[in-house]
Amino acid sequence: MYRIDLNSDLGESFGRYTLGLDDQIIPLVSSANVACGQHAGDPMVMRKTVGMAKDAGIAIGAHPGYPDLQGFGRRDMNLSPDEAYAYMVYQIGALQAFCQAQGVQLAHVKPHGQLYNHAAINPDLAAALAQAVFDVNPNLALVGLANSALVDAGRKQGLITAEEFFTDRNYTDEGKLVNRNDPAALIRDEEQAIERVKNAIRDGAILSVTGKLIDLHPDTICVHGDSPTALAFVSRTRSALEEDGIVIKPVGAQ
Amino acid sequence: MYRIDLNSDLGESFGRYTLGLDDQIIPLVSSANVACGQHAGDPMVMRKTVGMAKDAGIAIGAHPGYPDLQGFGRRDMNLSPDEAYAYMVYQIGALQAFCQAQGVQLAHVKPHGQLYNHAAINPDLAAALAQAVFDVNPNLALVGLANSALVDAGRKQGLITAEEFFTDRNYTDEGKLVNRNDPAALIRDEEQAIERVKNAIRDGAILSVTGKLIDLHPDTICVHGDSPTALAFVSRTRSALEEDGIVIKPVGAQ
Amino acid sequence: MYRIDLNSDLGESFGRYTLGLDDQIIPLVSSANVACGQHAGDPMVMRKTVGMAKDAGIAIGAHPGYPDLQGFGRRDMNLSPDEAYAYMVYQIGALQAFCQAQGVQLAHVKPHGQLYNHAAINPDLAAALAQAVFDVNPNLALVGLANSALVDAGRKQGLITAEEFFTDRNYTDEGKLVNRNDPAALIRDEEQAIERVKNAIRDGAILSVTGKLIDLHPDTICVHGDSPTALAFVSRTRSALEEDGIVIKPVGAQ
Amino acid sequence: MYRIDLNSDLGESFGRYTLGLDDQIIPLVSSANVACGQHAGDPMVMRKTVGMAKDAGIAIGAHPGYPDLQGFGRRDMNLSPDEAYAYMVYQIGALQAFCQAQGVQLAHVKPHGQLYNHAAINPDLAAALAQAVFDVNPNLALVGLANSALVDAGRKQGLITAEEFFTDRNYTDEGKLVNRNDPAALIRDEEQAIERVKNAIRDGAILSVTGKLIDLHPDTICVHGDSPTALAFVSRTRSALEEDGIVIKPVGAQ
Repeated sequence: MYRIDLNSDLGESFGRYTLGLDDQIIPLVSSANVACGQHAGDPMVMRKTVGMAKDAGIAIGAHPGYPDLQGFGRRDMNLSPDEAYAYMVYQIGALQAFCQAQGVQLAHVKPHGQLYNHAAINPDLAAALAQAVFDVNPNLALVGLANSALVDAGRKQGLITAEEFFTDRNYTDEGKLVNRNDPAALIRDEEQAIERVKNAIRDGAILSVTGKLIDLHPDTICVHGDSPTALAFVSRTRSALEEDGIVIKPVGAQ
Repeated sequence: MYRIDLNSDLGESFGRYTLGLDDQIIPLVSSANVACGQHAGDPMVMRKTVGMAKDAGIAIGAHPGYPDLQGFGRRDMNLSPDEAYAYMVYQIGALQAFCQAQGVQLAHVKPHGQLYNHAAINPDLAAALAQAVFDVNPNLALVGLANSALVDAGRKQGLITAEEFFTDRNYTDEGKLVNRNDPAALIRDEEQAIERVKNAIRDGAILSVTGKLIDLHPDTICVHGDSPTALAFVSRTRSALEEDGIVIKPVGAQ
Repeated sequence: MYRIDLNSDLGESFGRYTLGLDDQIIPLVSSANVACGQHAGDPMVMRKTVGMAKDAGIAIGAHPGYPDLQGFGRRDMNLSPDEAYAYMVYQIGALQAFCQAQGVQLAHVKPHGQLYNHAAINPDLAAALAQAVFDVNPNLALVGLANSALVDAGRKQGLITAEEFFTDRNYTDEGKLVNRNDPAALIRDEEQAIERVKNAIRDGAILSVTGKLIDLHPDTICVHGDSPTALAFVSRTRSALEEDGIVIKPVGAQ
Repeated sequence: MYRIDLNSDLGESFGRYTLGLDDQIIPLVSSANVACGQHAGDPMVMRKTVGMAKDAGIAIGAHPGYPDLQGFGRRDMNLSPDEAYAYMVYQIGALQAFCQAQGVQLAHVKPHGQLYNHAAINPDLAAALAQAVFDVNPNLALVGLANSALVDAGRKQGLITAEEFFTDRNYTDEGKLVNRNDPAALIRDEEQAIERVKNAIRDGAILSVTGKLIDLHPDTICVHGDSPTALAFVSRTRSALEEDGIVIKPVGAQ
């Protein structure tokens, strides 16, 4: 049986500010990554988002980021591994408590934005994040970029890891994302993108940007619900996968 | 056997800013209330403070406050019970994770500053705080002002509660704190203050500001380590209690 | 000649979060109240909003609020007059600098949210706010609720003051807003609301909620551009005023 | 006549947190760089610090930093030049308003921490900062590291610039600071450090770490008042300079 997880970053509203069409994307995905109040989200939003994800029966994960609300966690902060460890524990703990309060299990952790990007290429930072996840709860899954230092660190730490795949991005011969500044970074044809996902799930391999067959084993795919167009694409992707007999379910689920 | 807990508010440093003589007060107390990053403290400070309290073998509690670092949680914020509930869950969870990461149990929760003061007199707010503690973990003890709405709410919720006594404050005939604006609010004679604590522990009663004997059952006493003078007073209080055969131990400990 | 100012609260976006249809409301108003980064807004948004208001040729004012982004300045904070003074100077100064940088004059100050509401009824707070405005620049106009302590304080301080009128609210016999909890607080009929504004501008008086004629001299009317419906109402109000020969221009303009 | 400015970073306290011995360092310096509430300081502290500097008759400057209170502006943030421009205008404006409110002139701007360090080597960032200073007020002096991109940018912008010298640091043959990781970075002998300052002021040149004579024209020296030891060194430096006939006065003063 082939399987894949569809995950989405949710709970990114803050106070009077609303972001994302959470109620519309939730029915389309199997995992919710919930912002933890440092780069986005606040305690009221976290509570509500956990409730919505619980009601939908999807897996709930923490989505910790840099403590920079104004930059949405997308500006570099160059935290030391020790600082990053502490911010991770803090945010995972905060979200875990909302899960406890609603009688549901926290399932995974996926770092956000620049924290995710740095952890993909910096082994010291990656090790600190994996350690933080393990120290809070060794049963949590760690989601990272496919073929990244973060996934390596998670494995070394003994965590369940999930390799994240981006449907609309090209990959280098080394299995890394083609840099966004490169015109070849994006795959713009949606049908091609969907075919590619299906192949990657079945074969554990894709064609790189140069046409070479490279290893890539996607466990989870990141999808976005920011706009009606984005939602429609998620819906079509999901249908295409299911028609192909690929089961949509959270990482680690039986 | 007579017993009492000595608790202190710790981990109130933030980033480059240091507050409190935590290393010197920890050996004198049986419980640490650790700030949770909203009115004071930050993830690095929380990690370190939990480690220090663990090494000293004292009980560790969360000390959640209003999200107002600039006002140190001492300015009114008039949060709705729902908002207060969410901030409580968030902060308790964050601290709990640092305890999990260091293999030690979170033992209690004591609200901070104006959140504590409001919860002492506002039953709706008090109920929301008690619910938050219970929902995260029903085995947590809730610390509140003696004879307050918060302690009542905790009992109603089925939580272990601890009534907090202030050694240097006078009480009204109704068992409430005399308002700080009243010249009779403070007990300035240290020997008198210590005698009073001992009596309260033994008798479950003190003389009110008008000289009437009133019920007051202290489970825990709040002490401060901000200055050498404060530390010396805590040290003398502790010795006086121990010489009198009163055992210093955390609330709920065997 | 009859005249009135139409003002709107703008620049309330923050980082990744967008709020308000600023580009659509700006052509309809004569004054922009720009958020100053404490309850809403950030430096990039402030810069952009000042630029848009300058291009439209409308008056630019500071819209300082409580330092509570999560509560959007709508939660009580019970600042002392001294604290409120300092927050006002800070925020007015920040916005003034964006005006200087774009070669345009800062024209007025209108406090936001709960700071506005408290200053309407608390003379000590109102005096502190008026003092702050005066100390930064005595030529700034101060906008406050009509018949409020803030307008009184501004006059006493020697500032140009502007009395703000709400088109959709009923007023008590004392010229105060009917409390929002009262079913009679709101005027729901738009035509009636517009007639009422016109009368108030011409007569300096309106009928109170009990039908009594009371003094009320509107200098400026607060309008909102949060939704297409709101924008349409502003557009209709503006047309109705202009058709009646009432000139729309900023407070203090020649 | 030889002259030099002694500047110190002040007003770095925040809310309940106190930092620095501002009252003791102020009598020893000619210029105060006042934190602007983003990496340190708050509106109440800014008001008080401006008042103290005014009473002492020393020059008052803005000391803007990255918006990262928890990291004290010492963590990289990788702001775009446009973002940095906006944060500069915001902070300069806020401090300028406290000067206006107390009837004293804002004299200079010195970026803080990592913003200062990045602007020393990044010409685009440096140009954005210089533009921000100029746009708020072209008469403000811009303080930057001697021989840095920031000073170059200030000159190009037409601003008065001041080259800052560090008494306890060695310089490379190119006139840059020897990296802190290099054991030769620091000059530990205080007498030697003081001799060196005097020579630099008289000759516009110092010996580099390799013994080569290099151009370096100090306009201002950064001194610290964090501890009694630091204060004593400032006091001795000041005396040594004055005994040598070097006049201590602010940059740009007559």
